[in-house]
Amino acid sequence: MSLQIVPWDRLFDAAASAQRNAHAPYSHFLVGAAVLTDDGRIHAGCNVENASYGLSTCAEQNAIAGAVAEGAKRIAALAIVASTTAPCPPCGRCRQTASEFALPETPVRSRASTGEEARYTVGELLPHAFGPEFL
Amino acid sequence: MSLQIVPWDRLFDAAASAQRNAHAPYSHFLVGAAVLTDDGRIHAGCNVENASYGLSTCAEQNAIAGAVAEGAKRIAALAIVASTTAPCPPCGRCRQTASEFALPETPVRSRASTGEEARYTVGELLPHAFGPEFL
Amino acid sequence: MSLQIVPWDRLFDAAASAQRNAHAPYSHFLVGAAVLTDDGRIHAGCNVENASYGLSTCAEQNAIAGAVAEGAKRIAALAIVASTTAPCPPCGRCRQTASEFALPETPVRSRASTGEEARYTVGELLPHAFGPEFL
Amino acid sequence: MSLQIVPWDRLFDAAASAQRNAHAPYSHFLVGAAVLTDDGRIHAGCNVENASYGLSTCAEQNAIAGAVAEGAKRIAALAIVASTTAPCPPCGRCRQTASEFALPETPVRSRASTGEEARYTVGELLPHAFGPEFL
Repeated sequence: MSLQIVPWDRLFDAAASAQRNAHAPYSHFLVGAAVLTDDGRIHAGCNVENASYGLSTCAEQNAIAGAVAEGAKRIAALAIVASTTAPCPPCGRCRQTASEFALPETPVRSRASTGEEARYTVGELLPHAFGPEFL
Repeated sequence: MSLQIVPWDRLFDAAASAQRNAHAPYSHFLVGAAVLTDDGRIHAGCNVENASYGLSTCAEQNAIAGAVAEGAKRIAALAIVASTTAPCPPCGRCRQTASEFALPETPVRSRASTGEEARYTVGELLPHAFGPEFL
Repeated sequence: MSLQIVPWDRLFDAAASAQRNAHAPYSHFLVGAAVLTDDGRIHAGCNVENASYGLSTCAEQNAIAGAVAEGAKRIAALAIVASTTAPCPPCGRCRQTASEFALPETPVRSRASTGEEARYTVGELLPHAFGPEFL
Repeated sequence: MSLQIVPWDRLFDAAASAQRNAHAPYSHFLVGAAVLTDDGRIHAGCNVENASYGLSTCAEQNAIAGAVAEGAKRIAALAIVASTTAPCPPCGRCRQTASEFALPETPVRSRASTGEEARYTVGELLPHAFGPEFL
């Protein structure tokens, strides 16, 4: 799937919808994410925190898990929205999760609440990637 | 939501559909789960493994995250299917994740591939629960 | 190893020492834990949080990982201290982690800052345990 | 702490010792890691897997948690050994965990069982890092 045809506006809309449902009573940090799958569908997720902080899951991770549950094998793009003044990059765990289902050139975009946007690729976010070839 | 009206057959069907999409190239252990939310909707999930084993997520956890992303605040029932000869109970992390959104009396059922079924409640699976009241 | 000879005072002292080093800038919830291994050694751990909440690890989990790194195969007892008014039980993830290295009858004790103590076994905390026999 | 004085041989020895204790019955992938703390001490860890794959922890993460439990606030270097033919990079979660306690210029080295070595910095492994400044 080429970069040109990623429907970023629809991805960001889906991410923003999920963000409104974020369960973040501990951090009060609301994040939404949406993935475009290789068959053209969009799946969104939000962060889901837990009283045991380490069991919290991220929006990006949950969006990907939702896509997989509906049959996706690859993700073609990832959009992130966070209630931040600067665009919020994905954490290391989400980069690893994306890497399991993406190519190095898969685009990732993050928007702050100011509208400011950062653009990366999965490969830029996880250089020297760990993957199944090491197992 | 009373126990009597939980649509278990629909929950198990949704869980079995998601199970077929499990990403389990490392364990080859395929699990599906579905939650009924307090507003009567059903959300399913499957396990999504990662080459870095510790970044793998469980079917139950992913089903709950999917429900939360669509606005659910509480889960009313949880169904699990696994490719096992005896019904597979949820792991400790999934019990903790369910506890964040469920009551002690919330029912959990697990079915083996033989059709054998185990029935629990969230409270039976996580007695002396850790929760936000300790923070 | 019989219950009678668990050196609980030494375990709680080790747990309290580790608790003072807890990295909890996000929750401000300080926890320490110590395990007795089957060869009589004691290993302690504290919670280690992360800005990405879901990458936080618990004191119990870290105490066990420390014991394993030094060669332990089994844990014989687990002590927990938390800055709470009632004794704080381990979360579901820590119950699952303990279960990997413990027997159902392995004792777990938790002390609040008031000195109040709760006593459990691993089996009481994780009934119907998930384990490798399901894989 | 300057790059020149990192005692890499001692770090790799500590990592290799811990690696021998790796609990990896599921992946059979044995990893050891050791961190040098800012006060000159060395702490090692190994991967500790769980029947519920997602509760597995990595060697790097466990080495850092051990250092924190003994009072370290910063790590000055990280060494990794894995039973691989090419040097194994840390996964995304471990990069994020290291980032919590390291500077972008903190050195990371990984050795394969062939003796081949890869050299990185934390900043090279986690560019555009997510951290507490976004919360």
